Amino acid sequence: MRRDIKIGLIGMGTVGTGVAKILLEKKGLLELKVGVPLILEQAADRHLDRPRPVDLSGVKLTENPEDVVNNPKIDILVELIGGYEPARTFILKAISKGKHIVTANKALLATFGEEIFSAAYEKGVDIAFEASVGGGIPLIKGIKEGLVANNIECMFGILNGTANYILTKMTDEGITFGAALRDAQRRGYAEADPRFDVEGIDTAHKLAILTALAYGTPLNLDQIYVEGISYITPLDIQFARELGYRIKLLAISRLRGKDIETRVHPTMIPESHLLANVNGAYNALLIRGDSVGDVLFYGLGAGMMPAGSAVVSDIVDLSRNLIKGGVQRVPALAYMPGGRKKKSVIPIDNLESCYYFRFSALDQPGVLAKIAGILGGYKISIASVIQKGRKIRGSVPIVMLTHRAKEAYVRQALKEIDELEVVRGKTVSIRMEDNLDAL
Amino acid sequence: MRRDIKIGLIGMGTVGTGVAKILLEKKGLLELKVGVPLILEQAADRHLDRPRPVDLSGVKLTENPEDVVNNPKIDILVELIGGYEPARTFILKAISKGKHIVTANKALLATFGEEIFSAAYEKGVDIAFEASVGGGIPLIKGIKEGLVANNIECMFGILNGTANYILTKMTDEGITFGAALRDAQRRGYAEADPRFDVEGIDTAHKLAILTALAYGTPLNLDQIYVEGISYITPLDIQFARELGYRIKLLAISRLRGKDIETRVHPTMIPESHLLANVNGAYNALLIRGDSVGDVLFYGLGAGMMPAGSAVVSDIVDLSRNLIKGGVQRVPALAYMPGGRKKKSVIPIDNLESCYYFRFSALDQPGVLAKIAGILGGYKISIASVIQKGRKIRGSVPIVMLTHRAKEAYVRQALKEIDELEVVRGKTVSIRMEDNLDAL
Repeated sequence: MRRDIKIGLIGMGTVGTGVAKILLEKKGLLELKVGVPLILEQAADRHLDRPRPVDLSGVKLTENPEDVVNNPKIDILVELIGGYEPARTFILKAISKGKHIVTANKALLATFGEEIFSAAYEKGVDIAFEASVGGGIPLIKGIKEGLVANNIECMFGILNGTANYILTKMTDEGITFGAALRDAQRRGYAEADPRFDVEGIDTAHKLAILTALAYGTPLNLDQIYVEGISYITPLDIQFARELGYRIKLLAISRLRGKDIETRVHPTMIPESHLLANVNGAYNALLIRGDSVGDVLFYGLGAGMMPAGSAVVSDIVDLSRNLIKGGVQRVPALAYMPGGRKKKSVIPIDNLESCYYFRFSALDQPGVLAKIAGILGGYKISIASVIQKGRKIRGSVPIVMLTHRAKEAYVRQALKEIDELEVVRGKTVSIRMEDNLDAL
Repeated sequence: MRRDIKIGLIGMGTVGTGVAKILLEKKGLLELKVGVPLILEQAADRHLDRPRPVDLSGVKLTENPEDVVNNPKIDILVELIGGYEPARTFILKAISKGKHIVTANKALLATFGEEIFSAAYEKGVDIAFEASVGGGIPLIKGIKEGLVANNIECMFGILNGTANYILTKMTDEGITFGAALRDAQRRGYAEADPRFDVEGIDTAHKLAILTALAYGTPLNLDQIYVEGISYITPLDIQFARELGYRIKLLAISRLRGKDIETRVHPTMIPESHLLANVNGAYNALLIRGDSVGDVLFYGLGAGMMPAGSAVVSDIVDLSRNLIKGGVQRVPALAYMPGGRKKKSVIPIDNLESCYYFRFSALDQPGVLAKIAGILGGYKISIASVIQKGRKIRGSVPIVMLTHRAKEAYVRQALKEIDELEVVRGKTVSIRMEDNLDAL
């Protein structure tokens, strides 16, 4: 039996610092659970002089991640540099040296995951990535192990804390996207360049990973339909409220026969649903399994200590495999590599959804008839209409909710409607999720 | 490497049938994830002639569980008989024969767990029990593995679907406990003898298991304070609503310095809290870890397929250990046996809580002063009072919410108040949970 497990850490930013803190400050607790000490053997960061809330005096430090990757003592390499390169190269090199890998790098895994996972499999090492989706929430373990007996039918996730913070702020305070974004930036919830978060790209990275795990299909980031939240206005949030809905940036993936749908976009969900009550920087994932029914995981999706908690849980998992000799006991992507099969992704145009439309129309007789006529021509059936006398720049908002309609028809209809002389500005359209009922 | 894993099942009631269904009908899916077939080798039940929604024609059946326990081919024994005996004897015998154990038997584990877990440890076999708490929700794995890097600060659980169904029904329809119980019995959510569920005993069994896992303390069922829901009236639910609260049967456990508190009782929680929105037969557990913050797990707490899903996830876990040689890679009770330490349980009398009181008082001048005087004498400070002219059998309800007060003082004060001539009937007192704010 091994006397200890030696860990190397590359990248000592927010999450890396959290990991070091836990490994160093909870050494005793972890040994009580694992049986042998987990030693933070070496850590690398470009900015070693940066002050960190952890005492690193017992840890070998270097500015060169290669030192850690090449250190023959190290059993488990923890990659927290982020981004594509040099993270990818370091991980592949560490794998080639027989090191086990823990990473939180969703962008890398969603994009180069197939290459990395197959290198790890061939070499006979483990790779774990709990912190890549849902921060501290143990949802990847939940899907891979806890719900192993289920065919997953669908998943609905709030997976980006920044976007959720902004939407929550807009909902609670009636402020614009821009004002809420600036507030998030001031508080450190949003980066200077917030596009990854607010345009849904980060959420899509996470959905790509979850979809591969749930359906045993190869990673398919480029097939995920993505829409961000920057076009959402306080007016739409207000109408949503009046109609009993909340707007959330949802990651949706669903098995449809032998195919799957995968998409990320702002979605109106009933205010009584648990997901509608996931606020601020919190994340949640609702998974529907054919045996278990609906399961929801909830918690902080980011942050030094929550993400650190998830990374260390991976380190413990891999350490236990090393101690007992159970390496690769759980397939990295939930299914044995031979059992993964490509599933076709249904193009967004072919999907059906209920919709919220907000038209900006001149306050004239016959406008509603014209709009309704075009919708009818595309077989889009109206469930309800709100027209109120709130004039905005000479036009009034007309809000319609539709029954299920085909996305391609909706696009064409809105194009025609937006070309009407009586319609001013682009119509806002937000998909509604009507299949959350089981909760 | 093993060519298959052979499973023996004793007890083919609701959950056992679900387990057999999953093992037989999802053989292919499970093999894609585990790598070798999981074979349901033999199953035992007293009522083999009972119709079941699963084709058992390929399974060796017996009326005698001993046959399964003694079957040398069987690697993993799944105990779903329930109750203390003969389940305990069968499990201990199977352990002595080197079989690994999966059980959903919370009553047995909460009561005889120390004996069973130490027998398994000594013999070098695994024992898993995900379905014993929270049905299909993978929360035991979540605590033991996903949150391994955390000191757990507190847990709040809705862990009994029957009690939660009854309280939800009472809340939604304004009916009495008796009427809601009869409805639950008609729908099969409550047993003919519902005491285990509605008196909080089943919830206490589950809390005992969770507390041992979270704090590394021995199982301490007899130290858990338990109160059921049968004294809750529609009037109290109505007052709770007016005050912005819901009443839930909560399992609460909390670290207080070196000691712990563990209790099960009806609790008023703010209506906006996620736990307040866990309705019907659903369960949920909120766990606060020192690194991860608040994590919530939610799903169906019982039923053939949800509980079957959890049992099969345990079977898969143990099978993976057998295939890779990683038996006992995760300690059964989260901590290595040598790392578990007894923690003192704080007696309920020494705990503090905010309270909801409903007095039934004569509609006379000076009554409020008398009640308030007694409360003041016991240092119980009043946060708010509602008195409305709703006369019930000659008396009016007076509702008070208190600030934090010591349980022992509350008991004494209520005893004195209930002896007042102007007070009719026993005062209803419901604890409020004011420490859920982080959500």
